[in-house]
Amino acid sequence: MRVLGVDPGLTRCGIGIVDAENSKQKINFVAVGVIKSSPELPLEQRLLEIDRGLRHWIKEQKPDVIAVERVFSQHNVRTVMGTAQVAGIALVAAAQFGIKVVMHTPSEVKAAVTGSGRADKKQVATMVVKLLGLKETPKPADSTDALALAICHHWRGAGNSRIEAALLQENARIKRRSEKKK
Amino acid sequence: MRVLGVDPGLTRCGIGIVDAENSKQKINFVAVGVIKSSPELPLEQRLLEIDRGLRHWIKEQKPDVIAVERVFSQHNVRTVMGTAQVAGIALVAAAQFGIKVVMHTPSEVKAAVTGSGRADKKQVATMVVKLLGLKETPKPADSTDALALAICHHWRGAGNSRIEAALLQENARIKRRSEKKK
Repeated sequence: MRVLGVDPGLTRCGIGIVDAENSKQKINFVAVGVIKSSPELPLEQRLLEIDRGLRHWIKEQKPDVIAVERVFSQHNVRTVMGTAQVAGIALVAAAQFGIKVVMHTPSEVKAAVTGSGRADKKQVATMVVKLLGLKETPKPADSTDALALAICHHWRGAGNSRIEAALLQENARIKRRSEKKK
Repeated sequence: MRVLGVDPGLTRCGIGIVDAENSKQKINFVAVGVIKSSPELPLEQRLLEIDRGLRHWIKEQKPDVIAVERVFSQHNVRTVMGTAQVAGIALVAAAQFGIKVVMHTPSEVKAAVTGSGRADKKQVATMVVKLLGLKETPKPADSTDALALAICHHWRGAGNSRIEAALLQENARIKRRSEKKK
């Protein structure tokens, strides 16, 4: 099974493709890249460029599943809007190609590749390189995140309990924090 | 000139079409409607339905400009994400058809049709009915908002100082409020 991970972004949209055998234990790096759009262009042209880039990757790599990072509200409202718009475009592209599309949260992705939903960017990158047997960390970071997303998707359905454990841990942490506030 | 207004939304996406003569003083109602998507469908199918609906309206009405409401962060993060995704899809559709697309903020729209950037929904609806000489308020509210957006676009470029005045008023109000906080 081939998964195309999309780390949505307006300036840089990360793309990472990972294959897995049926057992899902053995995962293989296929390709990685980034779709850029120039900040000097009007918003609709930027989104159109990303739409074209995404469709190009989909046609070329013929994924079985597209995994998109689920966007949450961030501090910067402008950034989150662009990210949501790109995510929407990725979802529609997948639906038009008739390809299954799934969203994963950043915590799920981190938990899948590092065992902790609270891992930092560097830790995620280190694990992506290790798990896929790469010689170096793909740049920019958005492309590494897209690979992590693809790995996350492969492992989520495989009875891999690490994610669930990490999520439980994360929920417990949130609960503790909210109890403290009271 | 024909403007197609889009009030982006995942459950109901409002569509309003308004023509204006060159003087832009006389505006004419053309059509109004709403594109719905079933909350029971997966997100990507919902977005695909809205994308199809939008393209149908564009092909049928051949607007010169598409005006999309600029989304801001709202209380409900889930709602704002869906709204941003639909807005992104509308922007890409416009770019693909080679139609100029412009975004207006809710305050700009309110100011354009009521003279106040702080007007409530009812006031906006009353003015839309009056300005377009309609017999009744179009339902649902999303479709009325889309008409207001189209009117706003017509009037913004026409040396109409009401919007600028209302925005200055609004800015002054925000400034006063932030000074009070200090």
